[in-house]
Amino acid sequence: MHSVTSTASTTSTASNASDTYSYLGPAGTFTELALKQVEEAQGKPWRAVNNVGEALDDVVEGRSKAAVIAIENSIDGGVSATQDALATIPGLRIVGEYLVPVGFVLVARPGTRLEDVKTIAAHPVAYAQCRGWLDKNLPDHSHLPAGSNVQAATQLLDENEDGEPVSVADAAVAPPTIVDHHALEVLAENIIDNPNAVTRFALVSRDTAIPKPTGADKTSLIAELPTDAPGSLVELLEQFSTRGVNMSLLESRPIGDALGRHRFIIDLEGHITEERIADALLGLYRFTPRVIFLGSYPRADRQPADFDPRYADEVFVEARDWLRGLLASEPSDVLETGDA
Amino acid sequence: MHSVTSTASTTSTASNASDTYSYLGPAGTFTELALKQVEEAQGKPWRAVNNVGEALDDVVEGRSKAAVIAIENSIDGGVSATQDALATIPGLRIVGEYLVPVGFVLVARPGTRLEDVKTIAAHPVAYAQCRGWLDKNLPDHSHLPAGSNVQAATQLLDENEDGEPVSVADAAVAPPTIVDHHALEVLAENIIDNPNAVTRFALVSRDTAIPKPTGADKTSLIAELPTDAPGSLVELLEQFSTRGVNMSLLESRPIGDALGRHRFIIDLEGHITEERIADALLGLYRFTPRVIFLGSYPRADRQPADFDPRYADEVFVEARDWLRGLLASEPSDVLETGDA
Amino acid sequence: MHSVTSTASTTSTASNASDTYSYLGPAGTFTELALKQVEEAQGKPWRAVNNVGEALDDVVEGRSKAAVIAIENSIDGGVSATQDALATIPGLRIVGEYLVPVGFVLVARPGTRLEDVKTIAAHPVAYAQCRGWLDKNLPDHSHLPAGSNVQAATQLLDENEDGEPVSVADAAVAPPTIVDHHALEVLAENIIDNPNAVTRFALVSRDTAIPKPTGADKTSLIAELPTDAPGSLVELLEQFSTRGVNMSLLESRPIGDALGRHRFIIDLEGHITEERIADALLGLYRFTPRVIFLGSYPRADRQPADFDPRYADEVFVEARDWLRGLLASEPSDVLETGDA
Amino acid sequence: MHSVTSTASTTSTASNASDTYSYLGPAGTFTELALKQVEEAQGKPWRAVNNVGEALDDVVEGRSKAAVIAIENSIDGGVSATQDALATIPGLRIVGEYLVPVGFVLVARPGTRLEDVKTIAAHPVAYAQCRGWLDKNLPDHSHLPAGSNVQAATQLLDENEDGEPVSVADAAVAPPTIVDHHALEVLAENIIDNPNAVTRFALVSRDTAIPKPTGADKTSLIAELPTDAPGSLVELLEQFSTRGVNMSLLESRPIGDALGRHRFIIDLEGHITEERIADALLGLYRFTPRVIFLGSYPRADRQPADFDPRYADEVFVEARDWLRGLLASEPSDVLETGDA
Repeated sequence: MHSVTSTASTTSTASNASDTYSYLGPAGTFTELALKQVEEAQGKPWRAVNNVGEALDDVVEGRSKAAVIAIENSIDGGVSATQDALATIPGLRIVGEYLVPVGFVLVARPGTRLEDVKTIAAHPVAYAQCRGWLDKNLPDHSHLPAGSNVQAATQLLDENEDGEPVSVADAAVAPPTIVDHHALEVLAENIIDNPNAVTRFALVSRDTAIPKPTGADKTSLIAELPTDAPGSLVELLEQFSTRGVNMSLLESRPIGDALGRHRFIIDLEGHITEERIADALLGLYRFTPRVIFLGSYPRADRQPADFDPRYADEVFVEARDWLRGLLASEPSDVLETGDA
Repeated sequence: MHSVTSTASTTSTASNASDTYSYLGPAGTFTELALKQVEEAQGKPWRAVNNVGEALDDVVEGRSKAAVIAIENSIDGGVSATQDALATIPGLRIVGEYLVPVGFVLVARPGTRLEDVKTIAAHPVAYAQCRGWLDKNLPDHSHLPAGSNVQAATQLLDENEDGEPVSVADAAVAPPTIVDHHALEVLAENIIDNPNAVTRFALVSRDTAIPKPTGADKTSLIAELPTDAPGSLVELLEQFSTRGVNMSLLESRPIGDALGRHRFIIDLEGHITEERIADALLGLYRFTPRVIFLGSYPRADRQPADFDPRYADEVFVEARDWLRGLLASEPSDVLETGDA
Repeated sequence: MHSVTSTASTTSTASNASDTYSYLGPAGTFTELALKQVEEAQGKPWRAVNNVGEALDDVVEGRSKAAVIAIENSIDGGVSATQDALATIPGLRIVGEYLVPVGFVLVARPGTRLEDVKTIAAHPVAYAQCRGWLDKNLPDHSHLPAGSNVQAATQLLDENEDGEPVSVADAAVAPPTIVDHHALEVLAENIIDNPNAVTRFALVSRDTAIPKPTGADKTSLIAELPTDAPGSLVELLEQFSTRGVNMSLLESRPIGDALGRHRFIIDLEGHITEERIADALLGLYRFTPRVIFLGSYPRADRQPADFDPRYADEVFVEARDWLRGLLASEPSDVLETGDA
Repeated sequence: MHSVTSTASTTSTASNASDTYSYLGPAGTFTELALKQVEEAQGKPWRAVNNVGEALDDVVEGRSKAAVIAIENSIDGGVSATQDALATIPGLRIVGEYLVPVGFVLVARPGTRLEDVKTIAAHPVAYAQCRGWLDKNLPDHSHLPAGSNVQAATQLLDENEDGEPVSVADAAVAPPTIVDHHALEVLAENIIDNPNAVTRFALVSRDTAIPKPTGADKTSLIAELPTDAPGSLVELLEQFSTRGVNMSLLESRPIGDALGRHRFIIDLEGHITEERIADALLGLYRFTPRVIFLGSYPRADRQPADFDPRYADEVFVEARDWLRGLLASEPSDVLETGDA
């Protein structure tokens, strides 16, 4: 599949695939801002793509070493396309997490006045996040849905042979960094309704080597319930609570085969090499084999996992030693001595 | 706010507001198919609007008696815009539920050949549901995101003064009923990847009178957790399980103020006038006062709620009688007789 | 049934039954010490009986207004005879609770030397509580089981026609108060192994009027599980935890019809007139109708019940008001206005 | 400590300690009937002792290889002395379980008539089990508490120099086998109130080698709660329910240091070498290190443990293989190939 415009094309065609990083382009997107935080990607070729599907295809087919994709937005929730892709494309692993504060500006061709704006191009999610501001300041505006904010914004500059704009939109909602790349004029800043909005991005790879634990890690899973019986979700969640494992995310997504059937997207606080997480995974696997391990990776906020000391690694070791002692017993020598 | 096109305009401007039903138009949408199932709406004015927000605004501001909005899709899950609107707009009530099987055709201007199709207009959700077929049959196609499938399809017929099409798209993904209203040609039928797809619609009103119980009802809620403590969700769910109440839906949506803070969209099997549901609501309210009752209404599938007989209404009455007996006791007459 | 000795006979044969208090006699028992704490019993006739069964028979048959019986011992646990009697004799209510510190002395006929003691009479429970001291200080002693410590102690003084002791025991384990009533000699004090031992007594009546709440109350119950299914006990306990109700006692007793079938003796922190307790009772009754309410009464330790403010009485009232509001709704007047 | 009578003395003083089996004597007790079921004890020296404490002392001090002790009675519940001894004496293991139906006869010196019986000697537990019959048939009888039914019965035959009976009792409650050993006359048979009464006996040893699993085993534990917090018991029980482990016994016993503090006596269905039991033990140890493993041993009723197939041993192995696979991953070769 090709995109309507060529803006988001590959920027590194000759590069070694195992070095390349795919991201939702073009330059200027929030995804690019996330990629700029990925240490190992600096100085490596970056590949701008049109959507999450293409980014993950690049990874699956070996065109890229990894891809950065939006996974959760503080306003809009889990990114469905990402969650569904991770649930259905085998072999993918999340190896890193990055947070990007979300902010929007309203941009237009130079010379446009705010009061002249009638039609605003914006991705539906961005539009929803700015709608309060837009309804108040431009009550008569119309919305033109766009697949990409940056693309829609740059199209404002496209002209036909007569030097007339080809876009039917008068303005676009875009990230502030857009003006670093394009000669657009900012008509209004900070038009997002919630100033604390942040998007969480995942670095996704096919490399199944798990990043080393840092003490401040997350483990991501997708699990289906074994039955629709009431209480089944409670039982699933008890696999975590009985091991003192906290969840930082629980979202449901339809499996797609029938109404009411859901899978659950779960983030646990901790790393698979920590005993309580590993044990919870074992418990979860027994409870429902329909579980996908998506990865353990450092948390973006570097906040150490908080848990009851009775679920510390050494307690697991102690418990195993105790059990091993119970099992290893030989007939006690006191009684054997009694035989003599 | 106005829509880009005038297609989805009000069809009943002179009508009595309390008679009017709003729906996502234009004619031919799945929402219209749902509205056709609403008995009390037949023969009343219908008002086609551009999005869920407008539909609910009509209800809130008294322009319409009720609105039909998509609430859940078997492929794509809960409709975020609907869930968030119901969570934040006070005074709305769900009074009915309707199911519409989802199917798509690929339509174009008469005379178009399938092999000539390059650019396909489609709402992102519809596009996602047909992407398997499109990638296989039209591997080189491009996607033009649209705000409405029906609108995008009808725009294929729009011409400029020279009689040339104005749309940049060659074809559109649309519901099969589109051809009842517009002179479009069907290039391919049944292009949806999952043939069992179904969308659930809600009839939303400001009328807080609760529809009578039918024995096959649902109760919809939105609840926030009182704390972020692990186990808090388990405790919330126990408010249902300890009363033998089944959930048919549990979805999480971000509250929007910070990453990781969620509210839960919950459907219970039963009617608020049934004792076990009323008691679960009381328990839920005490556990977390941040609970919104969205309504009790007949299930679209007319399937009676299944529950353990020990949570039947008469057992609640018996239990109250027992408690009342315990509390009402006067000093026993045996002992009083002893006094004589 | 009659007792072997006449020591524990009725002390108030002519008294009005509704004034009389039965207790495990004779004078000098711990039960008598408990009865001395019962305010309303002071100045009323007391009736010493031989065992718990007789005490409760007095109450059931109207010979006494109430009886004081041992219900739990900090060393030995729930008193089985009491628990089983409360589970099987209908119409009894606990109306008060009293604590008596337990301590024992070793007594003998005047002139006896500790080193001459061979055979020690003691009730098996008392013997068990002193066995550490006895084994250490009188390693060669024998135990003569007695039905009552005080009775066994006083029998030490009984003589035959020749002035010889009739008891085969040389000494007895008895409460320190024994010497207030009988000319026995204390051979050793503080012979109990655990100096913190305390026995809890219940004042049991047929009067079903419930003592007024004091803010520091207990509610006692006996419940059977509805099924033997695993998890059934967890479900029963959730009836309390989901209402923020704490248990101060949970003991199991065999029902008696088959191995492994148990009923549970439960004390809750709070009074039946407190909303969370009443609601837990309703929940419990629905979960298992095999529940006996034994009473709500002031705690002996006067310690106020500690509970999460979200389960305070006013929250229950608030929740009911909320539910009533939901149910009482009339078609909203906004829409009715729209009709005009 | 010595017993009052010499009846229950050692029957095998010269025997090799490691061969000897201790039991509550004398010959004719139900405990002896249980010992007769212990295959490995046949043909070995048996040592009759006076109480549970002596029996366990024999084991702890190496005088006996094992002891048979009553552990639970279908009428009277867990045997407190046994439960407390197992909780406090370290190094003991239950290695077998035996059931003995309980029945009683009323015996007397030859020539005694039922209507002449006034005073009945009986262990309090036996007396409680026969009280319905005794109250009905001998309404005027008195109870003389005895430490041992068999002992009390044989004492009926003891005479003084003048050939007069020394016992103050006229009759005794005893097991039917008493007449195999002593010249007593049976005044009445089947005097037990509940004809299905059965007592469960444990074979207790210091040998920590665990009997081989048979597919129909029990695992016995004693556990304390880590805190008094409400819900703590629910959490403990979840360690079993989340592993599909059923309990066949849950009893509480006071720890003895303060009112309201309990330990729990627990029997699980399964053997420590079964994965779900071992895993539950690990979970329990982490939840509360105050746990005592009392043993895994064949069930007396030979009934195989019933459990959900998802907790079968092979699922545990599968889960570990899955986890090991996740942890063992090397950078995937696809990407390595990409490097070439």
